[in-house]
Amino acid sequence: MDFASLLGFLSGLALIIGAIFIGGDADLFVNVPGMMIVFGGTWAATLLTVRFTDVTAAFRAAYIVFTRDDTDQQKMIDTMLQLSKISHRNGLLALSKVETNSKFLQRACMLIAEASTEEMVRTTLQTEIDSLMVRHYAVQDVFKKMAMYAPAFGMLGTLIGLIQMLSNLTDPATIGPAMAVALLTTFYGSLLSSMVFLPIAGKLRRRTQVQITNLEIIREGTLSILSNDHYANVYERLSSYIPEVKRKPLTRHTGANTVKEPTL
Amino acid sequence: MDFASLLGFLSGLALIIGAIFIGGDADLFVNVPGMMIVFGGTWAATLLTVRFTDVTAAFRAAYIVFTRDDTDQQKMIDTMLQLSKISHRNGLLALSKVETNSKFLQRACMLIAEASTEEMVRTTLQTEIDSLMVRHYAVQDVFKKMAMYAPAFGMLGTLIGLIQMLSNLTDPATIGPAMAVALLTTFYGSLLSSMVFLPIAGKLRRRTQVQITNLEIIREGTLSILSNDHYANVYERLSSYIPEVKRKPLTRHTGANTVKEPTL
Amino acid sequence: MDFASLLGFLSGLALIIGAIFIGGDADLFVNVPGMMIVFGGTWAATLLTVRFTDVTAAFRAAYIVFTRDDTDQQKMIDTMLQLSKISHRNGLLALSKVETNSKFLQRACMLIAEASTEEMVRTTLQTEIDSLMVRHYAVQDVFKKMAMYAPAFGMLGTLIGLIQMLSNLTDPATIGPAMAVALLTTFYGSLLSSMVFLPIAGKLRRRTQVQITNLEIIREGTLSILSNDHYANVYERLSSYIPEVKRKPLTRHTGANTVKEPTL
Amino acid sequence: MDFASLLGFLSGLALIIGAIFIGGDADLFVNVPGMMIVFGGTWAATLLTVRFTDVTAAFRAAYIVFTRDDTDQQKMIDTMLQLSKISHRNGLLALSKVETNSKFLQRACMLIAEASTEEMVRTTLQTEIDSLMVRHYAVQDVFKKMAMYAPAFGMLGTLIGLIQMLSNLTDPATIGPAMAVALLTTFYGSLLSSMVFLPIAGKLRRRTQVQITNLEIIREGTLSILSNDHYANVYERLSSYIPEVKRKPLTRHTGANTVKEPTL
Amino acid sequence: MDFASLLGFLSGLALIIGAIFIGGDADLFVNVPGMMIVFGGTWAATLLTVRFTDVTAAFRAAYIVFTRDDTDQQKMIDTMLQLSKISHRNGLLALSKVETNSKFLQRACMLIAEASTEEMVRTTLQTEIDSLMVRHYAVQDVFKKMAMYAPAFGMLGTLIGLIQMLSNLTDPATIGPAMAVALLTTFYGSLLSSMVFLPIAGKLRRRTQVQITNLEIIREGTLSILSNDHYANVYERLSSYIPEVKRKPLTRHTGANTVKEPTL
Repeated sequence: MDFASLLGFLSGLALIIGAIFIGGDADLFVNVPGMMIVFGGTWAATLLTVRFTDVTAAFRAAYIVFTRDDTDQQKMIDTMLQLSKISHRNGLLALSKVETNSKFLQRACMLIAEASTEEMVRTTLQTEIDSLMVRHYAVQDVFKKMAMYAPAFGMLGTLIGLIQMLSNLTDPATIGPAMAVALLTTFYGSLLSSMVFLPIAGKLRRRTQVQITNLEIIREGTLSILSNDHYANVYERLSSYIPEVKRKPLTRHTGANTVKEPTL
Repeated sequence: MDFASLLGFLSGLALIIGAIFIGGDADLFVNVPGMMIVFGGTWAATLLTVRFTDVTAAFRAAYIVFTRDDTDQQKMIDTMLQLSKISHRNGLLALSKVETNSKFLQRACMLIAEASTEEMVRTTLQTEIDSLMVRHYAVQDVFKKMAMYAPAFGMLGTLIGLIQMLSNLTDPATIGPAMAVALLTTFYGSLLSSMVFLPIAGKLRRRTQVQITNLEIIREGTLSILSNDHYANVYERLSSYIPEVKRKPLTRHTGANTVKEPTL
Repeated sequence: MDFASLLGFLSGLALIIGAIFIGGDADLFVNVPGMMIVFGGTWAATLLTVRFTDVTAAFRAAYIVFTRDDTDQQKMIDTMLQLSKISHRNGLLALSKVETNSKFLQRACMLIAEASTEEMVRTTLQTEIDSLMVRHYAVQDVFKKMAMYAPAFGMLGTLIGLIQMLSNLTDPATIGPAMAVALLTTFYGSLLSSMVFLPIAGKLRRRTQVQITNLEIIREGTLSILSNDHYANVYERLSSYIPEVKRKPLTRHTGANTVKEPTL
Repeated sequence: MDFASLLGFLSGLALIIGAIFIGGDADLFVNVPGMMIVFGGTWAATLLTVRFTDVTAAFRAAYIVFTRDDTDQQKMIDTMLQLSKISHRNGLLALSKVETNSKFLQRACMLIAEASTEEMVRTTLQTEIDSLMVRHYAVQDVFKKMAMYAPAFGMLGTLIGLIQMLSNLTDPATIGPAMAVALLTTFYGSLLSSMVFLPIAGKLRRRTQVQITNLEIIREGTLSILSNDHYANVYERLSSYIPEVKRKPLTRHTGANTVKEPTL
Repeated sequence: MDFASLLGFLSGLALIIGAIFIGGDADLFVNVPGMMIVFGGTWAATLLTVRFTDVTAAFRAAYIVFTRDDTDQQKMIDTMLQLSKISHRNGLLALSKVETNSKFLQRACMLIAEASTEEMVRTTLQTEIDSLMVRHYAVQDVFKKMAMYAPAFGMLGTLIGLIQMLSNLTDPATIGPAMAVALLTTFYGSLLSSMVFLPIAGKLRRRTQVQITNLEIIREGTLSILSNDHYANVYERLSSYIPEVKRKPLTRHTGANTVKEPTL
């Protein structure tokens, strides 16, 4: 799990729980019917909004995004440079025997080896990038919807509590505690939204941006290899994707060894 | 009806009703004039905003989206591959006799059989996709508008209740129940918006995205068949539309039988 | 006036007034200074925001949209098919003598008759569509701005009322009625926004979409006629603009008679 | 100053002040520390957000937009037609001696006289239009930011007032007036936003749209003159930018005299 | 540090602190648990949402934007004109020896000197501009997210305070101070958002726009130099990027000396 997320989650939890304990009895903040309304309502409205497969895909994506690291863009450029070298040494066909752990890159290599036209390679890879964006957006959307429903059901729970309390004002001493209970659902809803759903949606969105850039580097690199560009030109074209301060001089790129070169 | 939606709707209903019954008398939550303001006001404002045909189209679309399944994208690719095989075996003209349950696909086949140019096929199918998006958007918009009007009329109802109560504060004992009644319309409006209108609008939007992808697969497949691409190339071009993990190897596609092949 | 709008407006009015009368004295809801703040403030801020000609154009557009019907897209296609037939029978020049009630169509016919190039026709008609969109958007914007200002001035009125009441709390019996009066402006602002300005803005937006589609049908039909397409191809190209279920077979289109054919 | 804005501003001011005086003592609505928080806070946050030059540019633009009139689009077309006539009579070079009060038009004339290519003219004028949009947007943004900060600092002032009042509840008689004072900053912030900043931002946005259309007319007219189009064709091309009902027949355009023709 | 920002920050601080001191005891506004919830919660949620490297990059960018000045667009044009002169005098190769403090410009010079095609130069520089926008957007997004989380955790803190107070209403005298403390977190959250996070996000966005224009001037200037345009044409093409009133006549551009010319 990446360090920042772990730190963020634990410190956030500690702060909220700490603030609750400093103020007194923590039991005040546990109310099972209120939790049912907020958690259950959010869950129900989400299931109504999206398909079940979208929900499972969303939770799988959230798990991946917090446990696995991004592929570094620098490393991706190194990989493409290595492939350029292989293609210059052994011909384009040799790329079909390269092994990588990115299915997208593997496919790009296959397209080169099959002697596809530039037009065909560009369209195929771009279509794949576009449809990946559509799918990733659908996944983020699940958490954005949850971040919208959670406070809404929090407010609904508070309204239910207020209506019940106000209809029955016989004993003034019960007003305070009853209102406290009513406010709890708003608290649950806001907390869920701000500490869980919005951060996950934001993280997924950010990760998608990084991935798209990686795929674009592969696409441009593939097209550069296909048109038999000089090694230095491939580097020139791809290095535009990373900030100036992070660019390594071309000579330091040669040590990379991220693809398993085929034994010919 | 799809399982997730059914589960979502029933569990959501059960939770809200459960929470109401736990808190006491459920009669508190029934108020006919309040319902009239929220339901009626939302309905009236929606009729003012859109045309009557849009409203009926919207409800028909909502019914379809919760009862009929999406066409699977994998299956759509299988269909296009089968058509590619037919066109290679029997010529492009044979496609005019193919029978499918998608009017869009049927039309694409007719365009091929009529020896249209690639430009003509692409423009015609793209125009159809674009105008489908415009129409679907108009339909989603009906529910988005309702999701906006429902809480607005809920608040208007609460304002009416509060104004009437505040003008007439003679008996302090009536303040609580009167405020409870006033808050009911806010409750109705929020519940309608979060449990009914927003989920339907979200579901329609999601379904449109899936359908657009299907139509794009048909468009690209049709263009691929028209330019007499090799069977494997048709597969290559179309498989970009589905995620890597769901792609079947080409050999497993041949068993599909989703279009009724013409007997020649 | 279109039926849905009339029904919507009357039923909405009836519901709100009904709800007010059920709760008691309707006089409670009339407060002249409050109305002055909300109506006048909205009007003043709108005049500051837009030009006077935009306001008059907006009200004229609102009047038109609720009294005149849309041109049916099916009918528009019929018209273009009829023009295609005329041009095949009598030559392109004959189109200059056709009479229609659409200035845009008339202009498209003139452009054909003047032997303009395809590029010229496409650019001229597209510019006209684009500048129509810009103007229509400006008109919708007037009502969107009003829908934004009305609740804002409602809240300002309530703040004025609350500040006056709170500064002068000598007699507790007056607190309730004073707050009721203060809340009235919020009520006026929200009602105006939800029942008047938002529906008009929504209706205008919807109408613009329908009109744009009609103009696009004319543009595509004109280009199709200009390039001397076969009658069936004109039909093929234009029918993409309407949903599958509404498409009439080509043979049923011939009866239409929406343009006054020139007597040659 | 344009009449609608003046009317809007005066009537708005009169209404708010009238409503305040009807309710009693107007002194209630003057609170210097509150004004300092709202005016000063908005000013401070704006200076932090944008550059000082942007703020001065914004106020200069606001002054211009309320004092000077738009150039009429009809007049702009007349000007371009006149230039077309001059270029046909005296040659393209004659345009270099034309004098207008629009720097953009002057530049377009220079570009023609310098025998630039169509590509060069189009790119240069389009770049100028695009960078004008970017600059105008930055200016509108200053007022949009102010319209966002003003209510935020209004709320902050109210929070400060409430916190001070609630900490010191010894004398119940002071609660009302203290709350009234606390609410004043919210009143100031909302009033500033709705009566000043939002209208100015809206007006600037509208004005930009009108200007852009004027510049587009110049761009298209220049290109039309450059390609030596017939006078009637220039008119045809440009009249698409104005609504049908406002188009004058070509013959009525000749009287215009908006550019100072060079004496040759 | 730029003057406007300093002035803005100091005056804003002074106003808020002044308003607090005028109202009485400033100790009222210090509450350590409340600060922990708002600051800590915002920090935790931000760390969950973005990557740690994004946060550090964001703070570094914020530091730069408030301490270093923009490059003036006028100066950038001067630089490009000087480069144009060098290339005309000493040939395109001479540009490889030019020294500037902009890495982007240095790279553009290298691309020219390496005899790249126009297509290659345009694509490479455009890709760099695009990926700079993506990265800058990610940095602004960190502060936008913080501006969203701060008030949310402010409200959560207030809810915690209210719930604790309401559950324990034994002594009426404590209600006021307890509510004051509860409201403090909302105050902290709003103040942080309006005085710190929103201004920084706005400033970064504005700065990005200015930088993008500068990079576009370099891109266009480079392409103009590459196609061996006349000095006056380079000026013509680039001056479109700055407003008319700021354009210097071409003759006054020659004195600039912003790049270190190579000694040949």
